[in-house]
Amino acid sequence: MKLHGYFRSGAAYRVRIALNLKGLSVEHVTHHLRKGEQNAPSFLEMNPQGLVPALELDDGTVLTQSVAIIEWLEETHPTPALLPGDALHRARIRAFALAIACDVHPIQNLRVLNTVRDLTDDETSLAWAARVNREGLAACEKLAAGNPGPFVFGAAPTLADVLLVPQLVNARRFKVDVAAFPRLLAAETAMLALDAVKRAAPDQQPDAE
Amino acid sequence: MKLHGYFRSGAAYRVRIALNLKGLSVEHVTHHLRKGEQNAPSFLEMNPQGLVPALELDDGTVLTQSVAIIEWLEETHPTPALLPGDALHRARIRAFALAIACDVHPIQNLRVLNTVRDLTDDETSLAWAARVNREGLAACEKLAAGNPGPFVFGAAPTLADVLLVPQLVNARRFKVDVAAFPRLLAAETAMLALDAVKRAAPDQQPDAE
Repeated sequence: MKLHGYFRSGAAYRVRIALNLKGLSVEHVTHHLRKGEQNAPSFLEMNPQGLVPALELDDGTVLTQSVAIIEWLEETHPTPALLPGDALHRARIRAFALAIACDVHPIQNLRVLNTVRDLTDDETSLAWAARVNREGLAACEKLAAGNPGPFVFGAAPTLADVLLVPQLVNARRFKVDVAAFPRLLAAETAMLALDAVKRAAPDQQPDAE
Repeated sequence: MKLHGYFRSGAAYRVRIALNLKGLSVEHVTHHLRKGEQNAPSFLEMNPQGLVPALELDDGTVLTQSVAIIEWLEETHPTPALLPGDALHRARIRAFALAIACDVHPIQNLRVLNTVRDLTDDETSLAWAARVNREGLAACEKLAAGNPGPFVFGAAPTLADVLLVPQLVNARRFKVDVAAFPRLLAAETAMLALDAVKRAAPDQQPDAE
């Protein structure tokens, strides 16, 4: 399999973590987002959204949308489970993950921030990104409260932790005071202690600058 | 079960469609978004994100995030299936649905549009919403291409159609020329012919204004 990504893409980082936790190795193909390579016609043919990541299977089939890719990995490689427990537990894990995937990440990604900057200025665009991260992670801190740790939903990593780690990287990049989220930081610490998660880090990728 | 929603919320509309397709009836509790009722302390205790929908189960457990709620409905009430077929088919359905749930809807919702309007003006905010809908639905039209109809992924409604119908309502509200998306309009026509979908429409809700 080939993972089409970019070292700094938070959504590609999620899929790298999930692949590593499942013990799967893939070939990495980079598309330089700041140079606009995701809008090359050859890539748009693979993913009409012009977004990374995209997972290209050995028969050429292309899967898009990081959460859909991870759900596919979970169905085809169920162990270790990233959506463990009963339907209710999975609903809570998915709600946490989607709070990040829908209501934080896309509203502070490069495409939106460039638009905000063009309408206003750099400072306003960065303040926008910080606010979106701060408000979203504050809600996630409450969604995590009361669950046993050290991970967001207990003793092992789930889809929630997979989404959390890259989002905290973004939050720090936008200078959010993440110390306000002790429960999330505890889950992050547990994640970063895992070799699978370490190897997925942006600065560990061959295209890192 | 109680569905906490608002007649005009696209995300609540998704859950209403899914509940009706599954043949489930719930009590509807409205939270007037334009009056900010989703930020009332009693609602924030149920959903720290301050967003509708939230599904309150009979034992008081609250599920949030529309797609997580629908995945829970799918697991607990599997028939008729909204995620049919094999893992690959489900991955494509989820990718289509998440292209809307992550990359269109949250970037053109009330909260973001109010922020854009406050930074600029009404006209810029509406142009933003139109562009987000136009670009996102253009990608969805391509994701749907080549699949048998009339629904997005074949002869029966799936999660993809459940997300599509409310998004087309938004696209029209922002004056997007939806005639550019014939494949999506065909799926919408098939959906709107179903009584379950008709009953979920915003103007059919008791809180409609």
